[in-house]
Amino acid sequence: MEYLEETGDQGKGHGILLPGKGLHEECGVFGIAGDTVAPTGDPDAAAITYRGLFSLQHRGQEACGIAANNGGVITCKKGQGLLQDVFDEKTVLRLNGSSAIGHVRYGTTGGSNLENAQPIAVSHIKGNLALAHNGNLVNAATLRKEIEMNGGIFHTNSDSEIIAYTIVRERIGSASIEEAVKKAMGIIKGAYSLVAMSPRKMIAARDPNGFRPLCIGRHERGYVFASESCAIDAIGADFIRHVEPGEIVIVEDGVLASMDSGLTVSRSLCSFEYIYFSRPDSIIQGVGVDYARREMGKVLAREKPADADIVVAVPDSGLSAAQGYSDESGLPNITGLVKNRYIGRTFIQPTQGRRERDVRMKLNPLRANVNGKRVILIDDSIVRGTTSKMIVEALRDAGAKEVHFRSSAPPFRYPCYFGVDVPDQDKLIAVGRSEAELADFISADSVAYLSHESLTRIMSEAGVDICKACFSGEYPIDITEAADTSVFDSPIIAI
Amino acid sequence: MEYLEETGDQGKGHGILLPGKGLHEECGVFGIAGDTVAPTGDPDAAAITYRGLFSLQHRGQEACGIAANNGGVITCKKGQGLLQDVFDEKTVLRLNGSSAIGHVRYGTTGGSNLENAQPIAVSHIKGNLALAHNGNLVNAATLRKEIEMNGGIFHTNSDSEIIAYTIVRERIGSASIEEAVKKAMGIIKGAYSLVAMSPRKMIAARDPNGFRPLCIGRHERGYVFASESCAIDAIGADFIRHVEPGEIVIVEDGVLASMDSGLTVSRSLCSFEYIYFSRPDSIIQGVGVDYARREMGKVLAREKPADADIVVAVPDSGLSAAQGYSDESGLPNITGLVKNRYIGRTFIQPTQGRRERDVRMKLNPLRANVNGKRVILIDDSIVRGTTSKMIVEALRDAGAKEVHFRSSAPPFRYPCYFGVDVPDQDKLIAVGRSEAELADFISADSVAYLSHESLTRIMSEAGVDICKACFSGEYPIDITEAADTSVFDSPIIAI
Amino acid sequence: MEYLEETGDQGKGHGILLPGKGLHEECGVFGIAGDTVAPTGDPDAAAITYRGLFSLQHRGQEACGIAANNGGVITCKKGQGLLQDVFDEKTVLRLNGSSAIGHVRYGTTGGSNLENAQPIAVSHIKGNLALAHNGNLVNAATLRKEIEMNGGIFHTNSDSEIIAYTIVRERIGSASIEEAVKKAMGIIKGAYSLVAMSPRKMIAARDPNGFRPLCIGRHERGYVFASESCAIDAIGADFIRHVEPGEIVIVEDGVLASMDSGLTVSRSLCSFEYIYFSRPDSIIQGVGVDYARREMGKVLAREKPADADIVVAVPDSGLSAAQGYSDESGLPNITGLVKNRYIGRTFIQPTQGRRERDVRMKLNPLRANVNGKRVILIDDSIVRGTTSKMIVEALRDAGAKEVHFRSSAPPFRYPCYFGVDVPDQDKLIAVGRSEAELADFISADSVAYLSHESLTRIMSEAGVDICKACFSGEYPIDITEAADTSVFDSPIIAI
Amino acid sequence: MEYLEETGDQGKGHGILLPGKGLHEECGVFGIAGDTVAPTGDPDAAAITYRGLFSLQHRGQEACGIAANNGGVITCKKGQGLLQDVFDEKTVLRLNGSSAIGHVRYGTTGGSNLENAQPIAVSHIKGNLALAHNGNLVNAATLRKEIEMNGGIFHTNSDSEIIAYTIVRERIGSASIEEAVKKAMGIIKGAYSLVAMSPRKMIAARDPNGFRPLCIGRHERGYVFASESCAIDAIGADFIRHVEPGEIVIVEDGVLASMDSGLTVSRSLCSFEYIYFSRPDSIIQGVGVDYARREMGKVLAREKPADADIVVAVPDSGLSAAQGYSDESGLPNITGLVKNRYIGRTFIQPTQGRRERDVRMKLNPLRANVNGKRVILIDDSIVRGTTSKMIVEALRDAGAKEVHFRSSAPPFRYPCYFGVDVPDQDKLIAVGRSEAELADFISADSVAYLSHESLTRIMSEAGVDICKACFSGEYPIDITEAADTSVFDSPIIAI
Repeated sequence: MEYLEETGDQGKGHGILLPGKGLHEECGVFGIAGDTVAPTGDPDAAAITYRGLFSLQHRGQEACGIAANNGGVITCKKGQGLLQDVFDEKTVLRLNGSSAIGHVRYGTTGGSNLENAQPIAVSHIKGNLALAHNGNLVNAATLRKEIEMNGGIFHTNSDSEIIAYTIVRERIGSASIEEAVKKAMGIIKGAYSLVAMSPRKMIAARDPNGFRPLCIGRHERGYVFASESCAIDAIGADFIRHVEPGEIVIVEDGVLASMDSGLTVSRSLCSFEYIYFSRPDSIIQGVGVDYARREMGKVLAREKPADADIVVAVPDSGLSAAQGYSDESGLPNITGLVKNRYIGRTFIQPTQGRRERDVRMKLNPLRANVNGKRVILIDDSIVRGTTSKMIVEALRDAGAKEVHFRSSAPPFRYPCYFGVDVPDQDKLIAVGRSEAELADFISADSVAYLSHESLTRIMSEAGVDICKACFSGEYPIDITEAADTSVFDSPIIAI
Repeated sequence: MEYLEETGDQGKGHGILLPGKGLHEECGVFGIAGDTVAPTGDPDAAAITYRGLFSLQHRGQEACGIAANNGGVITCKKGQGLLQDVFDEKTVLRLNGSSAIGHVRYGTTGGSNLENAQPIAVSHIKGNLALAHNGNLVNAATLRKEIEMNGGIFHTNSDSEIIAYTIVRERIGSASIEEAVKKAMGIIKGAYSLVAMSPRKMIAARDPNGFRPLCIGRHERGYVFASESCAIDAIGADFIRHVEPGEIVIVEDGVLASMDSGLTVSRSLCSFEYIYFSRPDSIIQGVGVDYARREMGKVLAREKPADADIVVAVPDSGLSAAQGYSDESGLPNITGLVKNRYIGRTFIQPTQGRRERDVRMKLNPLRANVNGKRVILIDDSIVRGTTSKMIVEALRDAGAKEVHFRSSAPPFRYPCYFGVDVPDQDKLIAVGRSEAELADFISADSVAYLSHESLTRIMSEAGVDICKACFSGEYPIDITEAADTSVFDSPIIAI
Repeated sequence: MEYLEETGDQGKGHGILLPGKGLHEECGVFGIAGDTVAPTGDPDAAAITYRGLFSLQHRGQEACGIAANNGGVITCKKGQGLLQDVFDEKTVLRLNGSSAIGHVRYGTTGGSNLENAQPIAVSHIKGNLALAHNGNLVNAATLRKEIEMNGGIFHTNSDSEIIAYTIVRERIGSASIEEAVKKAMGIIKGAYSLVAMSPRKMIAARDPNGFRPLCIGRHERGYVFASESCAIDAIGADFIRHVEPGEIVIVEDGVLASMDSGLTVSRSLCSFEYIYFSRPDSIIQGVGVDYARREMGKVLAREKPADADIVVAVPDSGLSAAQGYSDESGLPNITGLVKNRYIGRTFIQPTQGRRERDVRMKLNPLRANVNGKRVILIDDSIVRGTTSKMIVEALRDAGAKEVHFRSSAPPFRYPCYFGVDVPDQDKLIAVGRSEAELADFISADSVAYLSHESLTRIMSEAGVDICKACFSGEYPIDITEAADTSVFDSPIIAI
Repeated sequence: MEYLEETGDQGKGHGILLPGKGLHEECGVFGIAGDTVAPTGDPDAAAITYRGLFSLQHRGQEACGIAANNGGVITCKKGQGLLQDVFDEKTVLRLNGSSAIGHVRYGTTGGSNLENAQPIAVSHIKGNLALAHNGNLVNAATLRKEIEMNGGIFHTNSDSEIIAYTIVRERIGSASIEEAVKKAMGIIKGAYSLVAMSPRKMIAARDPNGFRPLCIGRHERGYVFASESCAIDAIGADFIRHVEPGEIVIVEDGVLASMDSGLTVSRSLCSFEYIYFSRPDSIIQGVGVDYARREMGKVLAREKPADADIVVAVPDSGLSAAQGYSDESGLPNITGLVKNRYIGRTFIQPTQGRRERDVRMKLNPLRANVNGKRVILIDDSIVRGTTSKMIVEALRDAGAKEVHFRSSAPPFRYPCYFGVDVPDQDKLIAVGRSEAELADFISADSVAYLSHESLTRIMSEAGVDICKACFSGEYPIDITEAADTSVFDSPIIAI
């Protein structure tokens, strides 16, 4: 994928600013529910959360936060930037408590503001509640207006606050926080994988479609929840299973219980979790990410072959698919591009001219390996086409005789309302362009995509029903309420 | 006053942590209502607010914030520390808008947290609302519980959020924001001087007792509001008048209007605004602070004379009163203590032993002036007695033959529920001790206070009815609701 | 004095950029020589140095530094800004050693660079040497050229490095460091009060003229040296005496010894140490600063009376002199200007227009006290005249009927080569203007200075011979070498 | 290689603290010589240097710096940490000049001090000189003592200052800076690749052995020099050639000239530049790094085969060699370990127990790919063995049936005096252990190294004579002077 400004793209979370809408909340979540909620002077739950989030950093680099629960007192630290920018040892030492939740957030360009950082921590009639989620509601505006009509006030422009408000309002007439969450899930619509922390319990839940992943592990200190299984591995915990779509998981006094929301819809996991967001070593809904990517590469090799000498991956996003393409085609998989591992939040002063070569600060061709070669270049996708074009040109400068671009994702053509940051349609290079036109645009000898039918089949054979909305425009749930976003027109901005 | 950790005490705001209660909000507020609310790309209102707050910095050093209104979009920056720690040019440049409000906050020791910083900015059914106030509600817990019973959620432990909620809830059935403020003033009880900013208006209001000051000025860019008149002077604006107790002032399209809350109670301005908090060049409710302090010093000289050679002030808090004492007694007013102007948020590593001399990092006796002299030492008050004791001893070390301590404030003996940070009664040195016992405690030859009857008379003759609660225990309004603070027991802490 | 940008002016150190010359080193120095030089794991010497420097902060706010000696290993931390900006607890904890020296530095406007911060720490054939000094050499260029001719390299543009080089070169043929210092003192010319630290000794020395002050104290941990006695007081040490002009003081193994440089010239202490730089509670060369200032005020009252109602000081620089003027004239000394104690390193965004009122951010007239009054306004000096003019106008705006400006310093008319930051002559308002013309320029009803003859007499009667060069142009030592500064033309700048 | 704390190991520079010796200077250098040296207000040379260093960041993360030459005035900024920590846009904008040099520095563990950061900038009799180098002198102590005997002083403990001093001293009797550099090269001994900047010229030079790389490129703004060719590519410049061992390259007025030092010894490029330090896309002395690594992998496959199912690389250090091993052996090259791209200067709070799993914060096995497989694990080297052991165990936990460790470097057994950070011999796991004993130590089924004869042959066939000292103990130059390091015993430490 084409994000020159990124810190790494081993798998990436995305925020999104859909036309006329508040900020989408694409991200990574983590939680650890200590086996007891007695007050503690130690920050171990926060430290484990920090480590878990560290393995989810690829899902969001704009902001992050951790909230710890110390016998009902919630201490929360949020800030802009990477975990290493926001947290130091001294800060973590102040986050006492036996349970904690955390969040990393991907933000849209331009705005590096604080108001929508998570977790959100609020006080209500039954005590405190902290909440972090990944996803995007499609009826956020409707719900917010209704709450405001009843005298509600909002401190943020985020879905998290709407979810928290909805849970709190249902809590009044409910016997328990989990019952309130269940009722709230009947009200909020869209994509969400959430972890919430009440004075005595931790709740994890996924929307009935299961748009966003969420999994469960067991650490020696208690049950853990994470967007991806790689975070479970990183803290030395054991992977248990995924939270099911529509499921509510409750941990209280070290005991894990499950509750069904009773909401039934067809499942539609976001295919970009496999294509791009997640780390290759994560297992999402039972399917390994590296495996899925290699399968995409294999099918791509069969469906969209090219007469060439070598396969070259765009690192890191195209690595697994290139392996699959190579395995299937029999063409050698060669390192043709080297990535600067320090690209990140760095200031890069442009010099006059040669701006087109700027991509080389990030990716440098390995001339000896591509010179005189016909190259099949594999990336996960083409979005705006500008970076793809620069990479193709860099390879040609390095002596590549031909460059055949292959995308392991089908072409993006429709907006996403479930948390993926797709640019406006007029910026999507695939909209209204044939593969031949696209090849012309990015100066490649050919361009070809994996078909979305093939993608669906690959994932289906692996046991996962995916959401194809961004490829086909067929949305798995009603999105008409998503259009009215006037309630977000005058935001509050925290800097 | 005795705060070794302070940055200066030209006049000081105080936060307070009353027994079992959330944080009190003692502070300084400022607002400028541009003559138009059209969106603007310039941050002039924020820059003027910064300058105004700069002159109110003595009222609070723990946290500060500015919110600017740009055609209904509110941008807000809050942080811990002095203005110079939180704001730089780049930050102010992002605070676009023709109107702005700001706040400096005094916090209690230990907690340097962020959650109660002001202004508070919230979105509600009629748009955004930003609010900053100085004071303390006595029915905060009651109101918070009631709001939470209706599904309300709180992000802070502050009175500001309760006030904002109350206004927003009244706004639904009201024709205007000012009507909502008027109704809210019938509900909230206690001490408050507030400035609020709606998409099109700025509102300033004072509680009917008029516990805390608030004044109006006219700047070339629009009407301004400030806790003290020195901030009006500092920005080059013209002082107009004070907001009256119970008055609501509205600025819309550059026109100032006044509305009466209709709430009538006896007036009871906090006497510590004259004794200690405010800057000597400020005029509070028509009475100059320096004038009031000199009067206190004069009466003190008549009521509590001492056979001595010189009058020495504890800088800066005792300067004006010492002048009055000197003028009345005819004894020369001599510089006997020099204050380090850089004492502030500094790290001071204690060395072993001699800890009692630490006061000399802050105050150093001027030996040549006090050696061999009988000194009348004037300060505004004695709270815990420990610093007073160290100052007396430092003067003796420097050769003073006698030290007679005189306090221009009457003895503190009762808790304040209106925003003054009085320690627990068991730490108040004046509780249960005679002046003679006190002299013994602080190693002075004599100790004497201004009587609270005299203080009342001085202020009354100047035209101001003061609150004497902390001296007499007679509270001007019912404080029974202030006792139940269970709702604040499990706070949310932001770090 | 007129430095709107200052953090406080209780007494001020000054750097200077003389025409064509490197940076002058006006500053404050401090040192503590532990009673043993055995390696230690504790940073107590550094912590005491920090506290001592804290009381010298008024002598320099641009940069500061501390070097600690731990058995011959020197650890040094320098940085730009106030002590509280450069040092925190963690940093001081790394400065282990039983002896330490420190420095605060005043810099010229514009440049906030690091290269000339002190102490300087160097390694040479006999081990390490750290050095900090206050003053300015008049043969710096000559010495630097000579050292460079012999293959020497310079890392800074400072006199400190020249002094260090000279000592090190003399050290080779000397039996001891103190002998090397003595020989070096025969080579370097100008103003310097220095503290130096070798692996086993601490050396303090003053130039034979004694331009800059330096005093000795005794702390429980060892002997201490400081530019002003207030720093001795602040750390709880006992004042012993001043280092004599031309004296070399050595501390080794807790024993203090003295050595005479044998250099004899007439003494000429900088009069501005009394007039402006030093804190009023300091004793310089046996004379109290507050005392000297009050004497100046008294003589000024006799020599330059005015028909007026009140005496008003410009705080803080005019406070003591105003007291003296009041005492002598019998006119009441009234607080007519209130200073904002937080003015410092703050960002102040100018608003359009009314720029002339900006002085009110710093100084606000106390209208009630000056309205309708004929005011004698006392400051220590008039340099450029612009701030004086703004203060006079502010007083008139506040209702003062007349304003008579009195300066306790004689008029500046000549450049200083000994460490005082005097602007170019064409910016010195006193050059070529009569008192009447000056009154016209600053809009005062009259202006008058203390005559330099009177100043000389006052100080002489107190036992101090002062340098009058900046008033009379008669320099106490040959300054011809100071003119050639070509060697400093291409500086190295560290940012 | 085994550095859990690293930010990435695409190629790594190393500092070294040899027994009893000052800090070695392993690093990356960069320089751009503008076509004119006229003073300029723009910071383009510094900005290009920043970009060049950015591509050399893998060679050093402890400290960095840039010095710019503006008509003879040198502005220099140095600091601890990554480029993004030390430089922001504002800082680079102050580094005006048409030429600039820069440096990234790798430091030894524990010390994150400032005193040895480069470039070093000094003033001498002919103007200013800035210098940065990569490498380590073997006669540093001898030279330093000699300079100190002549009255020289040192501000750092670095070889750079010794080199600068030596050049400056030779400059006095030389007609030009390049002649002085040539003479200095006859005096200094060891490994160095340096760039130096005089008021009008830039000089680049390599020691006669050519231990460390240095190459030349042409940018539209002038000639550039860099440790690795990837930096030439990154700034959009054209690669020209390498600086030859013993060559001095001079750029003046945009013209490049070459001069021979006349020093002839056998060539001995450090083999670790190919094995580990350099980026795979760099060309060192005419040989591609990726190519060399793949060749090592191929020979390793032939020499040290294993009966296994798959080849797995330790990312990133083993990637190229694994490719070669796979190509030669015919076994598939599978992603079996995934690296967290955000590991860096992060705070990681250890939790109790399970510390052995900490490697998973950095490297996580991809279970699906290794489960049930016999794995050949390829890394560039084994140093202490502890990380290798943890990786082997992680693969076993993930189901690997067998793990055969193969190192593409021969075993380290001897200290390096030319800039590689080799631990003490007693920590080198290869010292005194057979491959079988090593397998036992790291819990692998087998361990095997590339033989150093094979490595020598591979590089020799590619046209490069390498230094084999760390493998064989045969040093290409006399290192006896390197033993006496007493002159560095009492360092100056800057924090």
